[in-house]
Order: sequence, then C-alpha cells, then structure tokens
Amino acid sequence: MSTALKSIKSLAPLLDRVLVQRIKAEAKTAGGIFLPETAVKELNEAKVLAVGPGLRDRDGKIVPMGVKSGDKVLIPQFGGSPIKVGDEEYHLFRDHDILAKINE
Amino acid sequence: MSTALKSIKSLAPLLDRVLVQRIKAEAKTAGGIFLPETAVKELNEAKVLAVGPGLRDRDGKIVPMGVKSGDKVLIPQFGGSPIKVGDEEYHLFRDHDILAKINE
Amino acid sequence: MSTALKSIKSLAPLLDRVLVQRIKAEAKTAGGIFLPETAVKELNEAKVLAVGPGLRDRDGKIVPMGVKSGDKVLIPQFGGSPIKVGDEEYHLFRDHDILAKINE
Amino acid sequence: MSTALKSIKSLAPLLDRVLVQRIKAEAKTAGGIFLPETAVKELNEAKVLAVGPGLRDRDGKIVPMGVKSGDKVLIPQFGGSPIKVGDEEYHLFRDHDILAKINE
Amino acid sequence: MSTALKSIKSLAPLLDRVLVQRIKAEAKTAGGIFLPETAVKELNEAKVLAVGPGLRDRDGKIVPMGVKSGDKVLIPQFGGSPIKVGDEEYHLFRDHDILAKINE
Amino acid sequence: MSTALKSIKSLAPLLDRVLVQRIKAEAKTAGGIFLPETAVKELNEAKVLAVGPGLRDRDGKIVPMGVKSGDKVLIPQFGGSPIKVGDEEYHLFRDHDILAKINE
Amino acid sequence: MSTALKSIKSLAPLLDRVLVQRIKAEAKTAGGIFLPETAVKELNEAKVLAVGPGLRDRDGKIVPMGVKSGDKVLIPQFGGSPIKVGDEEYHLFRDHDILAKINE
Repeated sequence: MSTALKSIKSLAPLLDRVLVQRIKAEAKTAGGIFLPETAVKELNEAKVLAVGPGLRDRDGKIVPMGVKSGDKVLIPQFGGSPIKVGDEEYHLFRDHDILAKINE
Repeated sequence: MSTALKSIKSLAPLLDRVLVQRIKAEAKTAGGIFLPETAVKELNEAKVLAVGPGLRDRDGKIVPMGVKSGDKVLIPQFGGSPIKVGDEEYHLFRDHDILAKINE
Repeated sequence: MSTALKSIKSLAPLLDRVLVQRIKAEAKTAGGIFLPETAVKELNEAKVLAVGPGLRDRDGKIVPMGVKSGDKVLIPQFGGSPIKVGDEEYHLFRDHDILAKINE
Repeated sequence: MSTALKSIKSLAPLLDRVLVQRIKAEAKTAGGIFLPETAVKELNEAKVLAVGPGLRDRDGKIVPMGVKSGDKVLIPQFGGSPIKVGDEEYHLFRDHDILAKINE
Repeated sequence: MSTALKSIKSLAPLLDRVLVQRIKAEAKTAGGIFLPETAVKELNEAKVLAVGPGLRDRDGKIVPMGVKSGDKVLIPQFGGSPIKVGDEEYHLFRDHDILAKINE
Repeated sequence: MSTALKSIKSLAPLLDRVLVQRIKAEAKTAGGIFLPETAVKELNEAKVLAVGPGLRDRDGKIVPMGVKSGDKVLIPQFGGSPIKVGDEEYHLFRDHDILAKINE
Repeated sequence: MSTALKSIKSLAPLLDRVLVQRIKAEAKTAGGIFLPETAVKELNEAKVLAVGPGLRDRDGKIVPMGVKSGDKVLIPQFGGSPIKVGDEEYHLFRDHDILAKINE
C-alpha cells in the first residue's frame, strides 16, 4: 500500500500524546546464539520519537509531559493507536499510559 | 438518493467537532505500478475541512481547537460520525480524538 | 391512536433539549426522476422546531444553546427521543448531540 | 392487595423527583369512533402531581425545579419508578429526565 | 442461626445510610376480608429506624439528611443492603435512594 | 502454605482502608442447643482491627475515618480484599463501604 | 528471549506508579518440612523496589506517595502491569492500589 505519509518525522502528536516505536528484540541470546523466530517475543520497551504539547488543566495551564523525545520507556502490553509507515509500526500513547522511564 | 445537502461546504461543525475527509490511498506504488483493488487499504490520514468554535471550560471561556481548516491530520481507525454527500464520505470527530497533525 | 397532544407546537423542550423533525428525502433524483421506495433512505438532516432554555453551569448561569428554532442541522444516526404526533415523527436531542449546522 | 398508602396525595417526593401520572389515551378517535382495545397505546404525556424541593448544588444552594405541580409534561418511554396505589399507576422521575412541558 | 446482633437498635448507620423496615401488607382487604397468602404482595413502604450523620461535601460540611428516624418513606423496589436480625428483615439505603416521604 | 506474614498485627492499612475480621457465628442457639454445621451461616458482623490514616480531600486535608480500631461493624455481604494469615481470614474494606457501627 | 533491559534498577516509574516484586513463598513449613510444589501458593506480599514522583492535584502540587522504596507491602491478588526481566517477574501498581504496609 502506498502511504501518503512520507516519513514518521512529519507526525506532530496532539495534546498529551506520545509517539513511540517498540524496540525490537534481538534474535540472539546475550551469548550471541541466534534464536529461532518463535523464541523472539515482542518487547514492551520503546523509544519516544515525539511528544505533544501536553493537556491543559482547568485553569488553562499546560500540564508538563512526563516523557520527552529520545527517552526510552516502558509501554503497556496493550492499547495505544498503531500507525504504519511503510514496513515500520509505531504507536501513539497518552502520556499517563507510559509506565516508566528506562535509564541506562 | 437525492440529498438535501447541496455541498459539504454548507456544514458548520458545532462545539469542538472537526469535519474531515479521508485521504484516498493512491492505487499505485511509489514506483508508479498500479495496484489491484484489493491491495489498496483505507488510510487514516485526513484533511480538515471545517472546525467548530471549540468547547467552553467551566468559566465559560472557549478552549482553543487543536487543529484548523486545511490541516492534514491523523484520525483514529474507528469512531467519528460518517456523513455522505453524493458519492463522497466525510467524518466528524471531536477535537481531542484527532491523534496528530501531519506536517509536510 | 388518538393523542392528547393537539400540535407539536405545544411542546416546550426542557433544559438543553432540541426538538427537531427529520427532513424527508425527496423520492426523485436531482434530474427529476422518481425513485422506487427502496432507494429513498432516511436523511440525518433536520429542522429545529424548538429549543430549551439551556443547561445551567456550576455557578447557576445558563449555558447558551448552540442552535435555535428554524436552524437546519445535522443530527446523529441514532439516539434521541422519538415523539409521534399523528402521522408525523419528531425527535428530542440534547444540544451537545447536534453535530453541525447546515448553512444554505 | 390492601395498601398502606391511603392516597397518592400523601406522597412528598424527595430531592429532584417528580411524581407524575400518565394521561390515558382515549379509546376513541377524534371523530368519536370507539377503538378496539388493541389500538389504544400508552401515551408519554403525563400530569405532574407533586415535585420535590430540588437538588442542592456544590455551594448548598437549591437548584430550582424545571416543572411544577399541575404541569402537563412529556416523559421518557422507559425508566422512572412505578408506584401503584389501588388500581392507579404513577411514576417518579428525576427532574432532568422530564423531556418537555406541554403548553395548551 | 444464632446472631451476635442482640437488637436492631444497636445499629448506627454510617455516612448517609438509612436503616428501614418494610411495612408489611395486611393480609386482609379494606373491608376486612382476609386474603389468601398469594394475594399479599411486598410493599415498598418502609419505616425509618435510624439514619447516619450524612455525607460531607467538598468543604467538609455535613449535607443534611432528607429523612429522619420515624419517617414513613417510599423505597425502591430493588437495591439496598438486607440485614437479618432473628426473623425480621431490615434494609440499609443511601439517603438519595429514598424516593419520597409519606405524610399521613 | 508458609506465609511470610508473622501476625495480622503487622498490617498497616493504607489510605481509607479498614482491616476487619468477621465475627464467627456460634454453632449453638440462644438456648444453648448446638446446631449442625449446615445451620451456621456466615455473619456480616466484624471487628475492626486496624484503620488507615484516611483519604485526602482536594485541599490535601485528611478526611476523618468513620470507624476506629476496636469498633464492631456491619460489613457488606460481598466485596473487600480477603487476606489469609495461617488459618484465619481477614478482609480489607474501604471506609465508605462499612455499612454501620454496632453499639452494645 | 534476550531483553534490552539490563537490570530492573534502570526502571524509573512514572506518576504514582510503584514497582514491586512478589515475595516468594518458602517451600517449607515453619517447622522446616519441605512442601511439595503444589502446596506452595503465590503470596500477595511484595517488596517495593522503586516509586514514581506522585500524581499532581488540581493545583499542580505533587500528592505524596503512600509507600517508599524498601517498604514491604500487601498487593491486590489481581491487576498491575507485569514486567519480566530475565527469569524474574515484577509488577507496577498505582499507589492507591497498594492495600497495606507490612511492619516487621
């Protein structure tokens, strides 16, 4: 399917949405052994690609976002809005659905 | 069916509603090869045709809309109110349901 | 069934309710060809016959209604409270359920 | 069944409740022809017999009721609490569930 | 079953709860004719035995209860928490669930 | 199952939670006759063993708890979080779910 | 599955989330007798490994967390977000879902 979306970089999330891409599990063990396809599970770790400006509270003030572009985060197993650009899949989550930051 | 609605331009969305039209997937690849009908999937990209004035907060002040007429946006896979004018289909979404702006 | 309601004009909607009547699809095409019964679908366009005074916000102030008597509006496919007076059918919707105004 | 309730007039609705009695459809047409039993449908028009004092808002002030005793009103098809006194049936609705006043 | 609760009078409802006992339908007609068991239906009239202190609003002030001990009230057909003390059955309702007071 | 929890006394409920233990029905009648096992039903009376500090309202002030350690209370038939310590079963309820105090 | 997460210590919970690890039931009785596998049940006791900064109230002030790193707590039987790092399983709960602290 040809998509009108040239690049994921053209997406600017609205409100408190967070654009992430799941980190792919390497198909080999820590010791370097390559694993058969069925042993590779989807990870819940993701990289933040872009964030919205944040929601407004009742006084109209912007509530600061919990994560920022470049952060590595833990996302929920389910939920979020999937977006496909070419062969790559991305997700949009609400800021409060991001479970944790991953510090390295 | 003859419709009383002469043109989509006569529609003025109320409150925080956003009138959009899905962008049609081109039935050919980037390389120019025409695709058979079954390979053309519906896109979640849409053009904003008109927006409502916005909701009022508790103090009666209008909350500014996140998108404006002419914006290219990412809409959810499901939801929204479908509107048919002749052969064309449009959708009304609430402002907070629009996922992201698409900058080009 | 004999109804106690003499005329739809005796109905005064309460709170933020909007009394509308669906606009009937003409059973002929723009070119004047009469369509068989099965090709005539129900339209979601309606005429506003009467509106309530509006809801009160937390401070007791009336929130102004989005539509007024005489407006032509787009109503949702489903929902609302149907009212029958003789052979005619009307609907009561809440103001925030009216999708859009139709300007002509 | 003998009921302890001597008269419907002894009922004083609490909060924003409205005590109504459905108006019975006359079993004859406007022209005076009596209709067979099966052609007489239940009407959604009702007479207000008593109203509660109204709900309190967050500041403790009473929100005025939308209808008053003696009003003729349009009630929803379903809902409300049915009350039987002898052979007569009554209903209690919340003030905001009353659809419209009927002016004559 | 031996119950630890000696008397229903030892129960002090919490918050906005209302302790009531259904009024039993007399098994005879107004004219004094005793009715067979199957003709005696459960009534929705109840006597208030005790009330809680009331809920607190957002400012911490107690919202006054709508009914008081000794009141005769109309209760909903369903709901409430049943309590058995010996052979007698009682119910706890929230204050806002009591439908109406019965004045005699 | 060996449990890491040495004693129920080591549990300090959080927020507005109330730790209770159901009062066991005596397996004999008031007259001293021992009842067969099947005639002994679970009671909804419980003893309060510990209470949390209470919830905070919107201004950050602690809302006082309705019950305190040592109180005898009426608990709902269902709900609450069961806790097992050895052979004994306890429950955690929210303060607002406790139905009534039992004064003796 | 090779996981990108090197250590659970790299996880920094967001908002009011609490990272815990269930305490494993010892597979022997208090008297030192080893129990067969099927007699060892999962405990609802857990150790707090890390906590988020807390939610913000309407005025933007941080609501203090009820538990802190190092606390031993009682967690609900169900719920929470499971996280696997290597062979170990952890859970993220919201602060208000933690039932009680366990003091030793």
